[in-house]
Amino acid sequence: MASSLIRGKYLLSPTSDGQTAALHDSAVYQEDGVIREVGGWEELRSRYQPDEELGGADYAVIPGLVNSHHHGRGVTTLQMGTCDGCLELWILDGWGRRPYDHYLMTLYTALSMLESGTTTVMYNHPQTATATLREDVDAVLRGFMDAGMRVAFSSYFRNQNRVVYGADQDFLAGLPADLAEGVNSHLAATDMTDDEYFAFFAEIYDRYNSDTSGKIRVLLSPSNVQWNTDEFLQRTRETALQYDTPVHMHLVESNYQKAFGLRTWGKTPVEHLQDLEFLGPGLSCAHAVWLTERDIDLLAGAGATVCHNASSNLRLKNGIAPVNPMLARGLNVAMGTDSTAINDDDDLLQEMRLVSKLHRQPGIGAPAITSEQVLAMATANAAVPTGFAGEIGILEPGRRADMLLVRLSELESPYLDADLPPLEAVLGRARAQDIASVIVDGEALTRDGVHQRVNKDEIRNELREQLARPVESRTLETRRMAARLRPFAEEFYRSWADDSGGPPTGSPHYVYNSRT
Amino acid sequence: MASSLIRGKYLLSPTSDGQTAALHDSAVYQEDGVIREVGGWEELRSRYQPDEELGGADYAVIPGLVNSHHHGRGVTTLQMGTCDGCLELWILDGWGRRPYDHYLMTLYTALSMLESGTTTVMYNHPQTATATLREDVDAVLRGFMDAGMRVAFSSYFRNQNRVVYGADQDFLAGLPADLAEGVNSHLAATDMTDDEYFAFFAEIYDRYNSDTSGKIRVLLSPSNVQWNTDEFLQRTRETALQYDTPVHMHLVESNYQKAFGLRTWGKTPVEHLQDLEFLGPGLSCAHAVWLTERDIDLLAGAGATVCHNASSNLRLKNGIAPVNPMLARGLNVAMGTDSTAINDDDDLLQEMRLVSKLHRQPGIGAPAITSEQVLAMATANAAVPTGFAGEIGILEPGRRADMLLVRLSELESPYLDADLPPLEAVLGRARAQDIASVIVDGEALTRDGVHQRVNKDEIRNELREQLARPVESRTLETRRMAARLRPFAEEFYRSWADDSGGPPTGSPHYVYNSRT
Repeated sequence: MASSLIRGKYLLSPTSDGQTAALHDSAVYQEDGVIREVGGWEELRSRYQPDEELGGADYAVIPGLVNSHHHGRGVTTLQMGTCDGCLELWILDGWGRRPYDHYLMTLYTALSMLESGTTTVMYNHPQTATATLREDVDAVLRGFMDAGMRVAFSSYFRNQNRVVYGADQDFLAGLPADLAEGVNSHLAATDMTDDEYFAFFAEIYDRYNSDTSGKIRVLLSPSNVQWNTDEFLQRTRETALQYDTPVHMHLVESNYQKAFGLRTWGKTPVEHLQDLEFLGPGLSCAHAVWLTERDIDLLAGAGATVCHNASSNLRLKNGIAPVNPMLARGLNVAMGTDSTAINDDDDLLQEMRLVSKLHRQPGIGAPAITSEQVLAMATANAAVPTGFAGEIGILEPGRRADMLLVRLSELESPYLDADLPPLEAVLGRARAQDIASVIVDGEALTRDGVHQRVNKDEIRNELREQLARPVESRTLETRRMAARLRPFAEEFYRSWADDSGGPPTGSPHYVYNSRT
Repeated sequence: MASSLIRGKYLLSPTSDGQTAALHDSAVYQEDGVIREVGGWEELRSRYQPDEELGGADYAVIPGLVNSHHHGRGVTTLQMGTCDGCLELWILDGWGRRPYDHYLMTLYTALSMLESGTTTVMYNHPQTATATLREDVDAVLRGFMDAGMRVAFSSYFRNQNRVVYGADQDFLAGLPADLAEGVNSHLAATDMTDDEYFAFFAEIYDRYNSDTSGKIRVLLSPSNVQWNTDEFLQRTRETALQYDTPVHMHLVESNYQKAFGLRTWGKTPVEHLQDLEFLGPGLSCAHAVWLTERDIDLLAGAGATVCHNASSNLRLKNGIAPVNPMLARGLNVAMGTDSTAINDDDDLLQEMRLVSKLHRQPGIGAPAITSEQVLAMATANAAVPTGFAGEIGILEPGRRADMLLVRLSELESPYLDADLPPLEAVLGRARAQDIASVIVDGEALTRDGVHQRVNKDEIRNELREQLARPVESRTLETRRMAARLRPFAEEFYRSWADDSGGPPTGSPHYVYNSRT
């Protein structure tokens, strides 16, 4: 490693006291991957002799972005043939997705994410086949490391209600015998006991959490309250305390998940987690669309984090998370793409823009998310639940030197009013193609938008060749089975319609239009 | 002009019976700018001897996009220094925008729009200074014609309530005398009598509506119900009938505009227009966010069009238009960027994507806009109110040869499942940079993404040089005045809060989340 001075016309960063710094003609001096000083460029260049100077007067410097919820699908579910749909049915549609090489896919995904400014990802590994889980995870982590990306890794786990939000055997009993058998054997492929999951976690934790790269943290991940027994959740909490590692999960992504709580415990899922003493500062919850006001207070009070996935929530028919009330109540809100972003990529800059437009409630006095809040959601706030809290997300001395150089020429072309706040210009107009350089641990992983470690075209071509093979007969079989299963699952949820699983009722957090 | 065969792996277009065609290995044969035949590529190439063949097996052919609401600001309001805000205050903030060369700005704007696939624009000219209105409009239309774009032109007109939604003189009476005087003289610069407006319309109509290019239609445009007297609206309707030309206006863009109607007539603005017998098939209404169910029925029954501006409605804190109920009731819905799109450009492909994600109501049974509907909104539906109805928006014999060649290589890379419907792939993944060629009247205005008529860099540089001049002292003066005016305007609307202008109440069309 070495030292460098990274210079910008603007330096835009959250600060550790919850404010936002917007410095002009400034620079970051880093040595061996750690930020030593942030200050005026003239002053820093007079004081240090860096090996290299990056950036310049035509760039903005911002912290590396943190994608706080992700499943690693750089070749997207849409590309794999699954059209967007209602979450619960979309998951079943996805059963028939083709298998792929986890190393190549992760490397390709990470390179794509780096291009749009993501330097750290909360990667949540799907419950892939038990027989290959170890090698899959090794391949995934090797992919991230070869790309140079920082990763908060977790492997999610479901130990109940894996077809619909009801007991597997009850639901299977209502299916034709051959279909039930097919579904059963599909589920069996990912079977794992709780003991096996925690042993697996311990193994991965020991192997990677303190590895020499320093870029991996290993987290625990119950998939969601309806997918995990209370016993598993309690054991997760104990293990998290024992290892002092964060917990990442999905939570009230859909109204059906909220309804599951009301039907099962007469409480919201958050209230149930509160009863289990599961809520705490190490917990991050992806989606959290259907939080009540009380849920927001409970999560805020516990110091938990919500990972907002605006695009995914729209695409999978889950709604719009009440981010403004969350922020107003002091809840830590991060942001991620869930591998399902608006443009079917993992462009977190575009996601920031969507978030900044989506949460603008109508009327003069109504809340509107600010650009400062959006920047923090994608950096400082998102760092909190990754296991890298205090190490990334803010440009300040002592933190890792993860940052982006955003070229200003296009976004200022042919004109930009001198009085426009620079953060408004960058958040309002910068595109992935304006990210000239992505720096992780002081290493410029891209320069002028070109990857320095890996030839992405080669990786893409390898993936293309692998996927050009005929679709596997086993995949086609699973697709046929999932298609047969679908109407039964749909009927299951529709049967909730007269109950608490029906169309959303009650007063919404946001009112965007009015019928009367 | 000449003939060409435009070939695609897919040809995707609305049809005149309200369906969507998705043809494989097909082509459009055009002669002298008119589509002669649409069919299988092999068959068409055996029957015709075109001067040129465009496209190929790696492209999709879709109709040219129609941006149905636009104000021509290719250098955006944000670039000009106006941050997004609540519509009513944002308009005042915009008083201090710099003047610019209308020809250069329009040409630059049109070139940018063409790049992202817009071949026809509903351009609504702002009420610029009366003294220069004629030459401004000439410059604008020359800009569109030089770019090669088709344009439905209207010049909007306000003859009341030009500062807030209340009588100018009443509002000015509450201001400090010097401020009132400044505002008065600002307003006076755009003063025009009704007689002058209609004479001006007639002049422009005569000069351009049947000009040799065939690419211009001239429409009437009252700005909005709160900005126009009933007398003006009635005269608009009579003039529209006399000239057989459409009418384009803004309508219930904000909840304050709806509240204005309730306060003024005890009716919604749409109900008021119904009373005036103003509604009809020639009418298109931009925004229409705050339509009630009855309003939707009235507009649908009259055969009017709503121009949906999803990005603008979010950015200017107006909400989300109830597009799903509009479509369900058979209302013709088009789509536009209002020069305020999500990425601060005029990318209508990106806007289509936003629309396709935004209107996905939570739950299995709840409505979700389809890709077919989104395609129609940006093509066939949008053609209806332009004055080019029946001439554009659908790829079928007899219509003008306006279409796009979308390169498939990137959106299919490194893989695309063969079973994914091509429209889902194109709408879900295509970017402006994938538009290889934009064809208007059979003329390829761009080839491989490069403009054929004009060097865009030169135009951009000219604009840059002009805007590099110091901000005009008169502009700075207006900005100071607008900043002083702002709190008075804010107070005006806040005083409605205890009345019908308060935060939105009543049951919303969409429920995206829930407080309880």
